[in-house]
Amino acid sequence: MNSQVIRNVRPLGEAAVDLVLEQSVIQAVLPAGTAALDMDCLIDGKGQLLLPALVESHVHFDKTLWATPWRPNTAGPTRNDRISNEQGLLKTFDVPIAERAGPLIEHCIARGSLHFRSHVDVQTVWGLRHIEAMLALREKYRQLIDLQLVAFPQGGMLIQPGTTELMRAALDLGVDIVGGIDPAAIDRDPIRHLETLFELATRYERGLDIHLHDPGDLGRWEIERIADMTQACGLSGRVTISHAYSLGAFPPNDLLALADRLAELGISIMSCAPPHVTVPPVAMLRSRGVNVCSGSDGIRDAWSPMGNGDMLERAMLLALRFGWSKDAELAMAFDIVSSGGARALGIPNYGLEAGCQANLLLIPAENLAEAVVDRSMQRTVISHGRIVAQGGVFTGL
Amino acid sequence: MNSQVIRNVRPLGEAAVDLVLEQSVIQAVLPAGTAALDMDCLIDGKGQLLLPALVESHVHFDKTLWATPWRPNTAGPTRNDRISNEQGLLKTFDVPIAERAGPLIEHCIARGSLHFRSHVDVQTVWGLRHIEAMLALREKYRQLIDLQLVAFPQGGMLIQPGTTELMRAALDLGVDIVGGIDPAAIDRDPIRHLETLFELATRYERGLDIHLHDPGDLGRWEIERIADMTQACGLSGRVTISHAYSLGAFPPNDLLALADRLAELGISIMSCAPPHVTVPPVAMLRSRGVNVCSGSDGIRDAWSPMGNGDMLERAMLLALRFGWSKDAELAMAFDIVSSGGARALGIPNYGLEAGCQANLLLIPAENLAEAVVDRSMQRTVISHGRIVAQGGVFTGL
Ligand SMILES: [Zn+2]
Ligand SMILES: [Zn+2]
Repeated sequence: MNSQVIRNVRPLGEAAVDLVLEQSVIQAVLPAGTAALDMDCLIDGKGQLLLPALVESHVHFDKTLWATPWRPNTAGPTRNDRISNEQGLLKTFDVPIAERAGPLIEHCIARGSLHFRSHVDVQTVWGLRHIEAMLALREKYRQLIDLQLVAFPQGGMLIQPGTTELMRAALDLGVDIVGGIDPAAIDRDPIRHLETLFELATRYERGLDIHLHDPGDLGRWEIERIADMTQACGLSGRVTISHAYSLGAFPPNDLLALADRLAELGISIMSCAPPHVTVPPVAMLRSRGVNVCSGSDGIRDAWSPMGNGDMLERAMLLALRFGWSKDAELAMAFDIVSSGGARALGIPNYGLEAGCQANLLLIPAENLAEAVVDRSMQRTVISHGRIVAQGGVFTGL
Repeated sequence: MNSQVIRNVRPLGEAAVDLVLEQSVIQAVLPAGTAALDMDCLIDGKGQLLLPALVESHVHFDKTLWATPWRPNTAGPTRNDRISNEQGLLKTFDVPIAERAGPLIEHCIARGSLHFRSHVDVQTVWGLRHIEAMLALREKYRQLIDLQLVAFPQGGMLIQPGTTELMRAALDLGVDIVGGIDPAAIDRDPIRHLETLFELATRYERGLDIHLHDPGDLGRWEIERIADMTQACGLSGRVTISHAYSLGAFPPNDLLALADRLAELGISIMSCAPPHVTVPPVAMLRSRGVNVCSGSDGIRDAWSPMGNGDMLERAMLLALRFGWSKDAELAMAFDIVSSGGARALGIPNYGLEAGCQANLLLIPAENLAEAVVDRSMQRTVISHGRIVAQGGVFTGL
């Protein structure tokens, strides 16, 4: 591929530039109008906002019912009800994962996300079926997106004999991250659960991403133990705690020392910022240096019919959740669905500078705040220097 | 206008019908395929969902900055900071109200709303300027929408001498509803504030809509006083309490008697369901027979840059706020932004039966739940039997 130029775009709302790309990498960022006139023009941005591609840090592609007829939610009220309801549905669901998750991935790309971390169920009821399907999709979309997969013991690990062995098998197959879930409330033996996870992570040299819904003091105690083990195993910068609802149960000022410890150990906090439960004090965590990322969690699945994978909408929901209305706050919401995600996922060369991968989103907006509030559908998505979606329509394959 | 037919639509998701319209009224609802073939076809619905037009029960059109360049929010943290910040901005803002509110009204129509209640600032700093501008817009859009106007003393009434006289003048000019605001926290004399409002409502034979952010026990006590005066003045069915955050401060079971009283007096509760404050227990209120409606509140104004006037999105935000995921719950969210609003606003002939006004929304979705979750932009909006918007584009004038 020869050099190409994206003309007249405003990186993060700053002064207009021309972006010169070479072999899918940003080679130079020049003042607008100064790139050579005979260079191949990938797109004339006409002063649109230029953003790095969005980062979906927490999704469950393998369980979505996307692209299938509407299905009423039939789960009972407790978490265990929902787990067994989902098992019952998915065990025999007749549309293959590829035909649900594939279209959803393309939809997410069209909304501007090119980096994903998807938790993938590892359960004895269906063994590695979900893992295998998602590995195939990772291969199918390899030229377009980063798709990290997490071996996720949704139904519990220790309480479901055989699950740890399946997790190992998943990691052997090339799954990227070790997943965990509620060491106390679901697996009922928090230390043994966490020790098993950290042992897997250490042996396979992988990161960790632990679903933690456990509430209040219990969840907070578990977060402290995760910090201990992260330190002991030398896994700084490679651990994410997803949800961490318990951190919303305390006055933020009571959590300053814990926040400092999370920051020091590079432990990321993932929050979807749901409005009906307590959520971590995101602004305080960030002010202490803790990395925060966000995600859609389930999209149209047996847990919830909600979701559309739009990470700009997620940024708006974050802002609404915390009552953010200042430009700096809305820019923070954007940072969480972009750079915050890139840090949590360890995406190399993420950004808009020379040397970064040309994974980009163009959108008509004055600045980051307006992009988050307006969520225009007139989005142009560029993956590795190639336009893969425009106006909400995926054209990448 | 001759008879026209809307072919093959599914009212609220039920079996497909043909809708025969005569002079902007629904004349008959026939099984799909049975309307006379030679009748004028307004639109072939192709099995889309048919909904009554959405109801925006609480908005502030006069203060929007819509259709003007992005403006960072500069308000201080308290409610009084926000009031004075807004006064400072709007007193000298150089784009007339018609050029901001007009485009926003058209945008809201394109999203499917045809019934509106807009609070309009009555403040001594600018007298009746906002009222006059909104009365002119009500006239401009009279053929398309119901636009109720509320005389709203944003800066306080008793504490701003001259405001009550301006409210009277606004009502003389034809404003529909008497508005109030925080009788205790802002006006500092709750009984005299409420007595003044109810006296105006009685004298002018108008309904009431009171902004009530006052918290906890204070707000609850004021709600009881509003109920007392509604009863004493014989204004059953004509009073709305907007926000009523205080009702979110108590366990729902402590509010059953109060809920029963609100239901008996036909007092509606308006909630936008913001996630960062306490909100009324909507499901409990409805289960006791209290009418609940919703609105966008400020849209892109000096209070908040958020909002797009999409009442299907509002229904989704309501559902997220309360963790609703069942079809019946999502249908309840839809009911709040449609029939609940129509009841609060007293819209006659609202609905999808023969005899109702043909104010309609067609949208591709299986049922109400999917309409709320999916919020497709492929909407066809019909006002008084005429297509006024399609695919998000207003074509009504
Ligand atoms: Zn999850
Ligand atoms: Zn309001």
